[in-house]
Amino acid sequence: MMQLTWDIPTRLHFGKDCIQKLGEIISSYASNVLIVTGANSSKKNGSLNDVIDQLKRYNIKYHILDKIKSNPRVEEVREGILRAKKENVDAVLAIGGGSAIDSAKAIAMGYYYDGDVWDFYENILKPFKALPIVAVNTLAATGSEMNGTSVLQNESRQLKISVRSTILFPKDSFCDPTYTISVPQDYTIYGIADIIAHLWEAFFGMGEATLSDRFGKAIFDEVMEFGPQLIDDLINYDLREKIMYASTCALNGITIMGKKTGDWGVHAIGHHLSLLYDVPHGASLSVVYPIWLKWLQNKSAYGITKFGLTYFDTEAPDETIDKAIESFRSINAPIKLEDLNIKNFDKNYFLQLLINNKASGAIYPLNESDLKWIVDEMVK
Amino acid sequence: MMQLTWDIPTRLHFGKDCIQKLGEIISSYASNVLIVTGANSSKKNGSLNDVIDQLKRYNIKYHILDKIKSNPRVEEVREGILRAKKENVDAVLAIGGGSAIDSAKAIAMGYYYDGDVWDFYENILKPFKALPIVAVNTLAATGSEMNGTSVLQNESRQLKISVRSTILFPKDSFCDPTYTISVPQDYTIYGIADIIAHLWEAFFGMGEATLSDRFGKAIFDEVMEFGPQLIDDLINYDLREKIMYASTCALNGITIMGKKTGDWGVHAIGHHLSLLYDVPHGASLSVVYPIWLKWLQNKSAYGITKFGLTYFDTEAPDETIDKAIESFRSINAPIKLEDLNIKNFDKNYFLQLLINNKASGAIYPLNESDLKWIVDEMVK
Repeated sequence: MMQLTWDIPTRLHFGKDCIQKLGEIISSYASNVLIVTGANSSKKNGSLNDVIDQLKRYNIKYHILDKIKSNPRVEEVREGILRAKKENVDAVLAIGGGSAIDSAKAIAMGYYYDGDVWDFYENILKPFKALPIVAVNTLAATGSEMNGTSVLQNESRQLKISVRSTILFPKDSFCDPTYTISVPQDYTIYGIADIIAHLWEAFFGMGEATLSDRFGKAIFDEVMEFGPQLIDDLINYDLREKIMYASTCALNGITIMGKKTGDWGVHAIGHHLSLLYDVPHGASLSVVYPIWLKWLQNKSAYGITKFGLTYFDTEAPDETIDKAIESFRSINAPIKLEDLNIKNFDKNYFLQLLINNKASGAIYPLNESDLKWIVDEMVK
Repeated sequence: MMQLTWDIPTRLHFGKDCIQKLGEIISSYASNVLIVTGANSSKKNGSLNDVIDQLKRYNIKYHILDKIKSNPRVEEVREGILRAKKENVDAVLAIGGGSAIDSAKAIAMGYYYDGDVWDFYENILKPFKALPIVAVNTLAATGSEMNGTSVLQNESRQLKISVRSTILFPKDSFCDPTYTISVPQDYTIYGIADIIAHLWEAFFGMGEATLSDRFGKAIFDEVMEFGPQLIDDLINYDLREKIMYASTCALNGITIMGKKTGDWGVHAIGHHLSLLYDVPHGASLSVVYPIWLKWLQNKSAYGITKFGLTYFDTEAPDETIDKAIESFRSINAPIKLEDLNIKNFDKNYFLQLLINNKASGAIYPLNESDLKWIVDEMVK
């Protein structure tokens, strides 16, 4: 039996030049914003200038924090919170991909909290209030522009954790595929790998949410039709558009309605590759998934069979895994640890950290011997 | 190129006993509500009592308008508006299917307007403000519980028209499949026919919104898997649940994102069967669709071919139409005019009214000779 609450408050403005509506739309609730972005790409792709034009046109004051990195860290967020408090902003505006948007969410909730924002991530308290969040998405990947999740890493604590709350949904998100045209091939690939991984994490959340599973498969079909084409034709607007909209739908909630949660075991492992070796998020997932599926094959005949039937029209686990790998291969995503070119991969340290941090899935829990099996397979 | 705004503000509370959250949730904005419902079913299925229990528990005052009919009319809505003004309510709470919910939407916007509410339907002015709308949905069909559309008929004007606005989305909707278990077989069938018709109207809206089309097909597959089973097992909760969630998703916007509009030509014709002969909405659609598809076959090779490829994996128009008819037949929906048992069907009057009211589709316009062809086919 299915219980669900569909509560997706974000207004998504999607399409060429949608940014031209930004000033008018946000001026109803924002008069002084903190722009949260990275050092380079929002300057290169023109989005920062376009946003500033809009803000000026509507007399919205702004301040810029332009030091968010890929795999965003709590340090920059803390700086952003101080800045937001000092400037007394009334909204946080992210420009970028998941890193900028997740950081903006953290700043928006940290603004109202006197303690350390990291407390939300370690579940010491739940998010209780946040400034309005605006997202100008420039990367098709995480879906953060239309969900209530923020993922940060804390290097001193050696943790990369997500927090989720309805109050962390952006109020308005603007997705103009034009800004993604300058994304290089590797990050385009990682973004698509991330989309696929989101669909599968939701699928393995199980529960008999048949229609949600069908929506997930629909997005997968879309990505498998247009993703491989895009990799060979990076400046094709129409293909950028297809992948950008798919990435939003892959994690805005429609693939998970009626399930209590996704599994997220692959993400839990992948996050540690990012944490220790700064592996791009999507790349970590396409490397871990094939091995996790092999692990699942030994663990749950039901799980792997249902996956095969839903996604690849086969009951045979080996064929299912081959086809899953083929999905990643079709977009040239890394599928083996060696593809990541990690210098000095320390297998024992990596495993110990997974164990210490209790890396696991919600539906398919990973105990120490499971993690050991997976790490052994990774280095084989 | 695709432009879209995803703005679906309704919070959907779905599942067994979700009504138990109603009082707490709506008490944050409602203290005095007008309940809008029909004369019978909400008493029979227990939903009215359950709602009243909740309202009492949270000290929310209420007034009841329990005379909404299937194919709702502007007369009852006008009465509801007077009542809402007199009692100075702060929310309108529908209990029922599309008829009750559409009427509640009309009352909610009519409350703030001194003129006749029908003006909104004839597009004399746009909806500008509405009371908060709450929906307790008890019929899987129209999807009105999660969209901004209201359809009313006006017998003196011989019109049945829809109006659409973001302000007409219910604020909170509660869908407990339990309430649909007592829906008789015929109305269960009409509801499923309505779902299918919504998917196809969106599909024929065209535009290259490939992912939206995939979502539509996903819902169709869900309905074709569980709909025929439900017809033979009306008290099966799990099947009621599948169809109820599918009905919401079929018209909450996700199948139309990136398209400017659906076609709605079949609805335009079907509405006139309801207007003149009180034909249930879904029944009118399953009768008109087969003929409209035959008409389309002569009109647009592209349209019928794309439909066949997307829905039935065939390029052959005849096979496509056969399979479309088979879809309706699989749920025992009426597919011919004679199945509707209309007494004294006046072909010429019906055609003249279609012509006078300019019944047409947005993408596939219907001129007089098109309408004549369609009506001739209907009576063949």
